[in-house]
Amino acid sequence: MKTEIDILAIGNAIVDVIARAEDDFLVAQGVAKGSMTLIDEAQAEKLYAAMGPATIVSGGSAANTVVGAASFGAACAFIGRVKNDPVGEVFAHDIVKSGVAYGTAMALDGAATARSFILVTPDGERTMNTYLGASQNLAERDIDAAVVRKAKVTYLEGYLWDPPEAKAAFRKAAQIAHSAGREVSLTLSDSFCVDRYRDEFRFMIQSGMIDLVFANEHELKALYQTADFDTALAVLRKEAKRAAVTRSEKGAIIVEGVMTIEIPAFPIETLVDATGAGDAYAAGFLHGYTQGMGYEKAGRLGALAASHVIQKIGARPAVPLKELAEQAGLA
Amino acid sequence: MKTEIDILAIGNAIVDVIARAEDDFLVAQGVAKGSMTLIDEAQAEKLYAAMGPATIVSGGSAANTVVGAASFGAACAFIGRVKNDPVGEVFAHDIVKSGVAYGTAMALDGAATARSFILVTPDGERTMNTYLGASQNLAERDIDAAVVRKAKVTYLEGYLWDPPEAKAAFRKAAQIAHSAGREVSLTLSDSFCVDRYRDEFRFMIQSGMIDLVFANEHELKALYQTADFDTALAVLRKEAKRAAVTRSEKGAIIVEGVMTIEIPAFPIETLVDATGAGDAYAAGFLHGYTQGMGYEKAGRLGALAASHVIQKIGARPAVPLKELAEQAGLA
Repeated sequence: MKTEIDILAIGNAIVDVIARAEDDFLVAQGVAKGSMTLIDEAQAEKLYAAMGPATIVSGGSAANTVVGAASFGAACAFIGRVKNDPVGEVFAHDIVKSGVAYGTAMALDGAATARSFILVTPDGERTMNTYLGASQNLAERDIDAAVVRKAKVTYLEGYLWDPPEAKAAFRKAAQIAHSAGREVSLTLSDSFCVDRYRDEFRFMIQSGMIDLVFANEHELKALYQTADFDTALAVLRKEAKRAAVTRSEKGAIIVEGVMTIEIPAFPIETLVDATGAGDAYAAGFLHGYTQGMGYEKAGRLGALAASHVIQKIGARPAVPLKELAEQAGLA
Repeated sequence: MKTEIDILAIGNAIVDVIARAEDDFLVAQGVAKGSMTLIDEAQAEKLYAAMGPATIVSGGSAANTVVGAASFGAACAFIGRVKNDPVGEVFAHDIVKSGVAYGTAMALDGAATARSFILVTPDGERTMNTYLGASQNLAERDIDAAVVRKAKVTYLEGYLWDPPEAKAAFRKAAQIAHSAGREVSLTLSDSFCVDRYRDEFRFMIQSGMIDLVFANEHELKALYQTADFDTALAVLRKEAKRAAVTRSEKGAIIVEGVMTIEIPAFPIETLVDATGAGDAYAAGFLHGYTQGMGYEKAGRLGALAASHVIQKIGARPAVPLKELAEQAGLA
């Protein structure tokens, strides 16, 4: 591994199983459109049996982000747990072959590797049903302090709050990072996830444990329990050191103290599958941020990456993002 | 199952593992660009370890064809063998959920489910490396005579000539079909496959065992060992009852005795992944053919399906082909 890492991500190690579905199917399955719902293995089997032919690709929110950042050319690492089963091998193969350093020990027994069953409706929206499996066993022992110390930014996903042991791993990593003078970033992940852990997320942001917050509009409103975006943004500005808030086709807003930078979304031809839009935005932003490119360029790289991944199936880039950045004059 | 089946396909039951690759990588791996090379399990593991992050989707040439035809609305069935392993479950799930009747017993032991490691170069060409595994165990016992008798057309892939036992299954199915007054169709599959079994393929076509031949330009030239397309086509016209020959962007030619029908290719925006172009062509053609739509319309449906699948990753349709046919005025 390189002497310095730009971004270390810690998150659930998940393989996505993606199928097209009509809105009626979501209703019949009782899942809230656009959200991430946790399911157990029996529910996963039932859902898979009901859903259509699927495309299987590696996923996991924070994992997608470092794969995207590595595709831009950043030096990246990932910590997250799979089992040594065929699905776990797929996850490990893909992340390593994407140029991300990955050395978390595979579980030899217990729950299977995590899978997220993603239903993509004709409008391109994705609805996720996640069986966390082996990723739940991420614990303090999996945090390699040497790797955390080498990373400019340790990026954590809010979803990590779901598995109880992972929370301790999350806290340990943040502590090591700050002791080494490094930064910690958090994505709020999902508005339902924010509903589950609002007080803890808010405390972490207020207390200075998080240097850079990523959120989308819905997550931000959920965090501050308001339907008004400007109200939520005003609180965020006061409580967070700095944050990037994405608003789909309305672009993104970066705030730090009294400073506000608005970056428009990149135009797209067709929204095929929204899976990974936020992950890709964070990938581009963090790449620019850790390269010291400034917020505007970082934000534009985020928007570029997001526009790419939503025009195809799956959350990870289909072409080197470095090339897209060059074509867009953002290299 | 419906009383009558439009198309029954018999082929290798394969799951595709698709990754982008540079031309240099093909050279380093020693594989011939654009071809299908058979590999053993050890070679498969080595290749997977070397190749990039992958998309996993169900494949198999004849299986892709019936999935495509079912997507147009045809009543379809498939016979092909997987093992009861996770990959086999993926294959079975996807084909059944695509609306194709599939009841071949899964192998409980022995070789793993077949996988094809597909390398897609920047020009969109695909190079396949196939581990046949459990699909090689297709044998006469797997041919359900009642299903064959119900099918207007039994469609067989030339690749079936590779596993020794499958050849007997192939012959048995053809015999049952003809005894029931049904038709038999063969795709030549691949020019290297034609090189391996030229005499047998040619004999089957000459002897009237095949009612409808599918081939691409390269396979046809390989069959008649000539570099001249017109020469090959002239022999085919004499030896085969009827045939559809695809020529990529040059469109396709349908011949039956002295009759020739040329159908142009559908225009595309970007060639993303050529995997399954021929399979999709056969899907559209066989759908039109078994619905009695006439050769011209059948050929246009084939061209339409091919243009769709090559503009995305993987060989199977991403949207209902019936809808595309309606939009193109071909329903």
